[in-house]
Amino acid sequence: MKGQYLDEQAYAAMLNQDLVLYEVYEIKRPESAGELMHGISIVHPGKVGDEYFMTKGHFHTVLDTAEVYYCLKGQGTMVMETPEGDWSVKELRPGCVLYVPPCWAHRSVNIGQQDLVTFFVYPGNAGHDYGTIEQQGFRKLVVERDGRAQVIDNPRWHAIER
Amino acid sequence: MKGQYLDEQAYAAMLNQDLVLYEVYEIKRPESAGELMHGISIVHPGKVGDEYFMTKGHFHTVLDTAEVYYCLKGQGTMVMETPEGDWSVKELRPGCVLYVPPCWAHRSVNIGQQDLVTFFVYPGNAGHDYGTIEQQGFRKLVVERDGRAQVIDNPRWHAIER
Repeated sequence: MKGQYLDEQAYAAMLNQDLVLYEVYEIKRPESAGELMHGISIVHPGKVGDEYFMTKGHFHTVLDTAEVYYCLKGQGTMVMETPEGDWSVKELRPGCVLYVPPCWAHRSVNIGQQDLVTFFVYPGNAGHDYGTIEQQGFRKLVVERDGRAQVIDNPRWHAIER
Repeated sequence: MKGQYLDEQAYAAMLNQDLVLYEVYEIKRPESAGELMHGISIVHPGKVGDEYFMTKGHFHTVLDTAEVYYCLKGQGTMVMETPEGDWSVKELRPGCVLYVPPCWAHRSVNIGQQDLVTFFVYPGNAGHDYGTIEQQGFRKLVVERDGRAQVIDNPRWHAIER
């Protein structure tokens, strides 16, 4: 997650604490198009500086594959963007279904006080491209301002050659 | 559902009551492999004779595509079978994830006293083949015996040419 959080000093300080920010438990199936990978994602509550704990986020290696999330617990947002520059931040709350359409990178952010728990499903052949986000970051970040979640521009975002 | 329930007389009598046995609410997405159809299935509680209310059940038109169920409410079973003759009946209860592997026909059965509610996801290109089950039925049925759910052979099951 190095380079993803805005407050690099706060992030470096937390690294020494060996803190777990999120966990993913997945049922692995064969990596073919007709199969469905599925599992549970848990993002713990907390902040790095004033930025909420979040997942690394990823595109799928097979870019035009979707992902579905069903929120089981907690309060969060899904930060999404396309290679073309569209972006969207949607709410996650228990009972909510969130559809990440094909070609959208996605990252879940815990803006609540308890674990954010989601059930996810994506095509077996999708794969994960973490590298693009590692280098680019997401265009938008979710931070706490005056005790509330707010979406801000990521000043460090920059396009890489794809 | 004509021909699916064992007790045809009981089924005919219920038809006159215009009863809804189950409902499906789906988010329709483009029918391509990278998309994911998803929605909610509700099987109401009740019996036709001593056979529990159930869905019609289906193979996918693209046979080697999977489906994932997350059980939200109620108590049920998923009845499954392959064209080759394998069969399986698995439990559905709240918090349970049930994976229907590629090539398996599947039908959910409500063996409880309240609605059986599941969240389902399957590949956008899968399609539904209801015809095979309409003609063959499933190899196994779920009926109440001495107040409990029991799996029995379907005496009317017969293979059709595929």
